[in-house]
Amino acid sequence: MHVRLIRELGGELVAVCGRTLGAARAFGHADPYDDPARMLRERAPDIVHVCSPHHLHAEHSIAALAAGAHVVCEKPMATSIEDGLRMLAAADRAGRLGAVAYAYRGYPLIEVLRGKIAGGSLGVIRRVGGCYLSQDVLPAEKYVWMFSPRTTGRSYVLMDLGVHWLDLVEFVTGQSIVEVTAQFSTHQPERIWHGGPGEGGEPPGIPAGEGGVLVRHGLEEQADLLIRLGNGAAGSATVSGVSPGHPNTIVLSIDGAERGADWNQQQPNVWIERSAAGCMIRQRSPDALASDLAWMSMLPAGHAEGYVDAFRNIVFQSWSAMLGAGLGYPSFADGLRGLRLVDAAIRSAADRRPVAIR
Amino acid sequence: MHVRLIRELGGELVAVCGRTLGAARAFGHADPYDDPARMLRERAPDIVHVCSPHHLHAEHSIAALAAGAHVVCEKPMATSIEDGLRMLAAADRAGRLGAVAYAYRGYPLIEVLRGKIAGGSLGVIRRVGGCYLSQDVLPAEKYVWMFSPRTTGRSYVLMDLGVHWLDLVEFVTGQSIVEVTAQFSTHQPERIWHGGPGEGGEPPGIPAGEGGVLVRHGLEEQADLLIRLGNGAAGSATVSGVSPGHPNTIVLSIDGAERGADWNQQQPNVWIERSAAGCMIRQRSPDALASDLAWMSMLPAGHAEGYVDAFRNIVFQSWSAMLGAGLGYPSFADGLRGLRLVDAAIRSAADRRPVAIR
Amino acid sequence: MHVRLIRELGGELVAVCGRTLGAARAFGHADPYDDPARMLRERAPDIVHVCSPHHLHAEHSIAALAAGAHVVCEKPMATSIEDGLRMLAAADRAGRLGAVAYAYRGYPLIEVLRGKIAGGSLGVIRRVGGCYLSQDVLPAEKYVWMFSPRTTGRSYVLMDLGVHWLDLVEFVTGQSIVEVTAQFSTHQPERIWHGGPGEGGEPPGIPAGEGGVLVRHGLEEQADLLIRLGNGAAGSATVSGVSPGHPNTIVLSIDGAERGADWNQQQPNVWIERSAAGCMIRQRSPDALASDLAWMSMLPAGHAEGYVDAFRNIVFQSWSAMLGAGLGYPSFADGLRGLRLVDAAIRSAADRRPVAIR
Amino acid sequence: MHVRLIRELGGELVAVCGRTLGAARAFGHADPYDDPARMLRERAPDIVHVCSPHHLHAEHSIAALAAGAHVVCEKPMATSIEDGLRMLAAADRAGRLGAVAYAYRGYPLIEVLRGKIAGGSLGVIRRVGGCYLSQDVLPAEKYVWMFSPRTTGRSYVLMDLGVHWLDLVEFVTGQSIVEVTAQFSTHQPERIWHGGPGEGGEPPGIPAGEGGVLVRHGLEEQADLLIRLGNGAAGSATVSGVSPGHPNTIVLSIDGAERGADWNQQQPNVWIERSAAGCMIRQRSPDALASDLAWMSMLPAGHAEGYVDAFRNIVFQSWSAMLGAGLGYPSFADGLRGLRLVDAAIRSAADRRPVAIR
Repeated sequence: MHVRLIRELGGELVAVCGRTLGAARAFGHADPYDDPARMLRERAPDIVHVCSPHHLHAEHSIAALAAGAHVVCEKPMATSIEDGLRMLAAADRAGRLGAVAYAYRGYPLIEVLRGKIAGGSLGVIRRVGGCYLSQDVLPAEKYVWMFSPRTTGRSYVLMDLGVHWLDLVEFVTGQSIVEVTAQFSTHQPERIWHGGPGEGGEPPGIPAGEGGVLVRHGLEEQADLLIRLGNGAAGSATVSGVSPGHPNTIVLSIDGAERGADWNQQQPNVWIERSAAGCMIRQRSPDALASDLAWMSMLPAGHAEGYVDAFRNIVFQSWSAMLGAGLGYPSFADGLRGLRLVDAAIRSAADRRPVAIR
Repeated sequence: MHVRLIRELGGELVAVCGRTLGAARAFGHADPYDDPARMLRERAPDIVHVCSPHHLHAEHSIAALAAGAHVVCEKPMATSIEDGLRMLAAADRAGRLGAVAYAYRGYPLIEVLRGKIAGGSLGVIRRVGGCYLSQDVLPAEKYVWMFSPRTTGRSYVLMDLGVHWLDLVEFVTGQSIVEVTAQFSTHQPERIWHGGPGEGGEPPGIPAGEGGVLVRHGLEEQADLLIRLGNGAAGSATVSGVSPGHPNTIVLSIDGAERGADWNQQQPNVWIERSAAGCMIRQRSPDALASDLAWMSMLPAGHAEGYVDAFRNIVFQSWSAMLGAGLGYPSFADGLRGLRLVDAAIRSAADRRPVAIR
Repeated sequence: MHVRLIRELGGELVAVCGRTLGAARAFGHADPYDDPARMLRERAPDIVHVCSPHHLHAEHSIAALAAGAHVVCEKPMATSIEDGLRMLAAADRAGRLGAVAYAYRGYPLIEVLRGKIAGGSLGVIRRVGGCYLSQDVLPAEKYVWMFSPRTTGRSYVLMDLGVHWLDLVEFVTGQSIVEVTAQFSTHQPERIWHGGPGEGGEPPGIPAGEGGVLVRHGLEEQADLLIRLGNGAAGSATVSGVSPGHPNTIVLSIDGAERGADWNQQQPNVWIERSAAGCMIRQRSPDALASDLAWMSMLPAGHAEGYVDAFRNIVFQSWSAMLGAGLGYPSFADGLRGLRLVDAAIRSAADRRPVAIR
Repeated sequence: MHVRLIRELGGELVAVCGRTLGAARAFGHADPYDDPARMLRERAPDIVHVCSPHHLHAEHSIAALAAGAHVVCEKPMATSIEDGLRMLAAADRAGRLGAVAYAYRGYPLIEVLRGKIAGGSLGVIRRVGGCYLSQDVLPAEKYVWMFSPRTTGRSYVLMDLGVHWLDLVEFVTGQSIVEVTAQFSTHQPERIWHGGPGEGGEPPGIPAGEGGVLVRHGLEEQADLLIRLGNGAAGSATVSGVSPGHPNTIVLSIDGAERGADWNQQQPNVWIERSAAGCMIRQRSPDALASDLAWMSMLPAGHAEGYVDAFRNIVFQSWSAMLGAGLGYPSFADGLRGLRLVDAAIRSAADRRPVAIR
């Protein structure tokens, strides 16, 4: 994805750094490296895209910033607030920008909704609900590297998926989440590593035959949330990685005093504007965007834009900001915000009480 | 509704008791009364349908039971657990049955889902979510009698609407809700009584011009819930009376370890069976019902059944039970359960902590 | 269905006439007869509901009218234009009314659409399309009595299903269909009678083992139509009895110069109002009906009404007209119109050219 | 669109030829030309993308082929069968390939459906219906260049839009359309040119004030079709440019003897598999593609792919074929097929009879 966007936007991919030289070479597209420090030293890239496992984002981003590069970091930005703070400090120190790949922000209708709400078209916001439901780890024993100790810290599904939903809530409403109440569930506490694609290196655990490793993880696969926004709005949501039939259902459902709005990432080209009179299905159309956002959406209504288009928009925003343009972009500060929200949810679930967020 | 169903089921409506004789007379269909005691004494009905305001359900039901009648009581069964307990005791004492008009239980697909879950077709239940969204009190100053002190006790939207959703969760899954965490919101704390239809008698409040009364109610118009079921399943839901564009959206969304299921009361003739392979839209069909429930659904698939059909099923079940048939029906015990669940939510919202339910 | 509605509307069911006395007795609900003439003579009913096979509608209706009864006849009204004309003449002669059970007209939203179009809200009507798709005879050898010679005349699927769609087009738009072009398909020309429910008496054919009879029918199971309305509007539609996954999908899709409208019988409580701005999903609500039609819809928005409610509305209209009230109802003239439209389609398919309709 | 895809696929855009040098320069991205012959002579491109008005496709394509270039031509390939034949001959003569931009073929689910049908999963195909509804020319006087004499030949909406639907029918089913019956409607026969974007050069007509020109066009804005396929399958469809609320609704609805399938271009990432048991909503997923088509779909299920992705697939196929790879692609022969189908429909509408297609 990153490679494709880099080329599409006219960037030049100078180097790819993998865990091994072989992996980097297999990836293709550019000179392979297995040592980030050497790559940074030898190639001095203008911008580094950090796509390593979550717990390495901090180390790799900080190195890149120290080497004078701007950074586009995959989400979640890090696995702890501390790491997030170090990354922000590194960017400040280096005078470079850090962006976080909150790709879903790049859908044009997210901007349309944001504009509607900011402009008061829905009235005072009262409810923000929805979900992020996936079946990423539905199969009984399915293992992904994020279940390995230390790779995602203290959370699986909020860290990997929920952080997107929480970011969209704040981004779209322009309101801060000031309190979260969470209830966590671990439905499949034993999973088996077999070393397949996406499973990462061998984790500590109990031998499970044929080279497999049984891992007892304590991470939530489902998080049920109550949120309170700064203006008093409230809502509920569930984030799950074990919801059958949901490849990647991200729903934002918003009630204002006058109108409501619904958006579902799986049908990203429509939104529903609810009012007492009925529910209006509105198609994405370039005409609905503010003129300074018109670049986000090229195609006439009725021609689907997709995830790649959204992701490209985010990378374009970030690069533009790095090149000095005044464009907004999902920044390290936004990434840190996500870590704070997830951290609050983790503490709420553990302490069984609402937790306020600074 | 009750009158229509009584006649359709072949019952004879002998008397109607209203707040005033005029009201009862205006209602028509049968001899008018304004004094329940006199009506019970003079007509000795076999069955009394209690459709009075919520806070009078207990008094009216207990009188009817004491007079030897069975009772079909509107929901919520009462406005306090204490009243509910008194009603149960009265029924026991009288050797009569008490039913609660949980009409949504009467949809055939609710029984289909219940059967699927009981039969293990979804696998172990892990998540139960959904919502009950309405726009009943969306207009800024809209007043309904349930905002008058003492008529709904300590809750508006959970008592009036949420109790249905909570009942469906337990009824469909066969699991008890063992813990609830609630967050309440009052978005429109000042509402104005004008004495129109549905507003009830004049409440205490501040004169608001033209005979209106401004009432400052402290009741929740939106309740966000986290629930935990006995088997460890969990979920979130929102109940609202101020959600634009939602006349009466009741959604049950259930994840099992194998499959998921969704049902929406506004399209009561379909349900969605989710699996890793996709989402199957299944039509209500008499064939899908267990043979002992075949009476619930008369029409071939593709011919919509509606709310009246569901309500009739519940009244039919209740009457049949009262006449000695072994049919299940929503009983006073189920009504009391609803009161306990709402009470737990009220206390959770007030105390800002999860509350266990006996 | 008819029995249920007769009782619900307060009628008294005095007699049931079946092919055999046993069948009539098994049907229950009222005194059994096997001889229509005797039944009419002995019971002198005010109204007769004719629910016999299509080719007997004429004989039974004419007898009932001659005996002084009004008639509510199932659709299609007859199997030939000639029979239809004889029925109209018989009603005229007897000074009695004949109604046809075009049940789908009874949905409140059909009246809402009719009102919108008559009031000009959509602008000049330009397109009327849609479909009537069912899987009634999808299984390879499935036999229904309508495949028996002479029971449906020269058409299966248009006669049994399509006639509803054609009626709705004219009823809703207030325009006549002035030309039809049809293309017929017989996908399963050999079907096997086994004498099961719905298969009727043994048809002529080839013995097919175990008492079965293989019937070679030449009737269309799928009819593709082009229509032209009096005002120049045009459209296409398909009617099929072999469309997998469609229990009973009746769709009306209408374009006006200003707005469009879609309605689907399987979700009869919503319609979609299309405009350049988007597609508005509107819920059935009593408020949307003209005051003289308010009786058609009792329930607040969000509470589904269904097929029984629609059918009851039609019977209520017909009875009211028979009792002297000025209510409109689907009349024998409307039934005859259906026969003319189907006849035109049959001739168009045979002659491979557009056929004009008087 | 073409520029973007050329770059994304790693091609080098060497020249842009416009009607005027200014237009070509304004387009940017590459050296501007206003003379195709000179451009071909000076730059000798490997591949020429022909995006001129429909009636110039033949001239420009033939020139490019004669200059030794392969051609990717926008659809419709030409405005007459004669031009189409000349283009094919030119490609043959030059030993170069001609491709037509049937972009909708590039959606992965189109290939999935094609594979399902070829593999027999739906059973024998019996019905192919659907629509292509747009509101491209809904506003009363809206003018587009295709209404100018000679630019689209004898058809507007079939030539501009319908040709896609017809192509998809044959491509997906693997069957030829052997007969078409058409009914044309011109709802807005007078339209006014104002010289705005998309209106082309000033057409002949009647002065209409402020430099406008009133054009009386005789072209169909709505075409209703009956089709018959080679294997006996049949169906109906409507193509319209004046259907309110439809930006670009392309629906394929297919019945087989065992199962049915529906696909809607506006939600290109799902298809519905219908069976007697219900309607399965299936998500696009790379896993569902045959291995030799895996390149068409990069993203995991739940991440929308869109029109750009589909278009890129078609260009990639075409270029690959031009570079010698064995990949299928929408060829000039397919483009010519579209012209024949549209021509048959035009003649059918004029002669009011079914027209067979070679």
